Amino acid sequence: MPTDTRATRLAVLISGGGSNLRALLDVIAADAGFGGEVVVVGSDRTDAAGLEHARTAGVATVVEELPRGADAATRAAWEQRLTEGLAAHQPEVVVLAGFMRILSGGFLARWPDRVVNTHPSLLPAFRGAHAVREALAHGVKLTGCTVHLVDEEVDHGPILAQEAVPVLPGDTEVALHERIKAVEHRLLPACVRALCHDHVTVVGRRAEVRLAPDTAEQELHP
Amino acid sequence: MPTDTRATRLAVLISGGGSNLRALLDVIAADAGFGGEVVVVGSDRTDAAGLEHARTAGVATVVEELPRGADAATRAAWEQRLTEGLAAHQPEVVVLAGFMRILSGGFLARWPDRVVNTHPSLLPAFRGAHAVREALAHGVKLTGCTVHLVDEEVDHGPILAQEAVPVLPGDTEVALHERIKAVEHRLLPACVRALCHDHVTVVGRRAEVRLAPDTAEQELHP
Repeated sequence: MPTDTRATRLAVLISGGGSNLRALLDVIAADAGFGGEVVVVGSDRTDAAGLEHARTAGVATVVEELPRGADAATRAAWEQRLTEGLAAHQPEVVVLAGFMRILSGGFLARWPDRVVNTHPSLLPAFRGAHAVREALAHGVKLTGCTVHLVDEEVDHGPILAQEAVPVLPGDTEVALHERIKAVEHRLLPACVRALCHDHVTVVGRRAEVRLAPDTAEQELHP
Repeated sequence: MPTDTRATRLAVLISGGGSNLRALLDVIAADAGFGGEVVVVGSDRTDAAGLEHARTAGVATVVEELPRGADAATRAAWEQRLTEGLAAHQPEVVVLAGFMRILSGGFLARWPDRVVNTHPSLLPAFRGAHAVREALAHGVKLTGCTVHLVDEEVDHGPILAQEAVPVLPGDTEVALHERIKAVEHRLLPACVRALCHDHVTVVGRRAEVRLAPDTAEQELHP
């Protein structure tokens, strides 16, 4: 928050290995001026390996398993439980870090313009769950990652930052995704930091983001 | 062509100012190893300012005006005249350099995998005639340019090269487009050069392009 020295309270949602959570925790630990702290980690999967990062860091976890193919009523009840579990920790910003579920407008309305997601493509190209595979199949020479605010459409909200990653000859989905993740591990924390400092202004689809002067321009436009 | 020292014969099609034609002529003039020469410039507009670049360079021109809103039969006859006008100069590669007409499969079949286009976005994002405006409206932080082989879908064929261009705060369509064009003026000649040397291999949607070793990696992935 800009008006005091209190750290902005962050919730992080994960479904898998949580490497973006790990990166965020590391950046916060190393940057006294970050202005945020992770107060809760949520997951839709009890077996999400990334939960271990939360436990190691002494951060509370909220795990609400949602079976595949759940009907609408089951999903709504699940989201309600997840929301209440997170809300008990009073987060001000919610970071989707490899969270593979779609959240409703009701969830988003609780944290307006303060739910942030990272996606492994240069949006609007290659939305959805198979962005890296589809970029390879399309034969693009550049893909990358996009950090954006979340709205009710999948991989669609106002864009905070993008960085390109070249596709190399003979690339595989795994190798390319690893190089994209390496960029995400810088770009997502930089954007969360900007949100913590209220350095994000959204007008329609266009977001103005003031990044930390020591890292920003150089890292976002290398 | 790789097997002899003869220059590959190039046709360039334009509709407007022809800055990409100008850049291509300049690169060829400065590079004894380019391996190609522009033998004819075609246009769908008698008032295309870029025709002057052809005349200055002593290159033949073929101008076939096509009225807006022409019906299918008129368009087919127009394309036939244009094709024959170009073919009289026996081009081996056809370069679309700001050419604002869609060419049919019949045209493309005459020069298979040897019609190349440049587009001012990172395809598959923002196809069509207003790519720069739409990228700004979408609020992307990165756009760029794509050089690709032409197939029967608009802005769709196998991609030869892409380079990112950052969107700056307060950018206008004109300012952003100018920065994209500056990149195109390097990227399109580099790809045409690769085509002249048969350094392009296409498998499905994926194109492998070997660029000139002195310029390629550095320029394409700065």
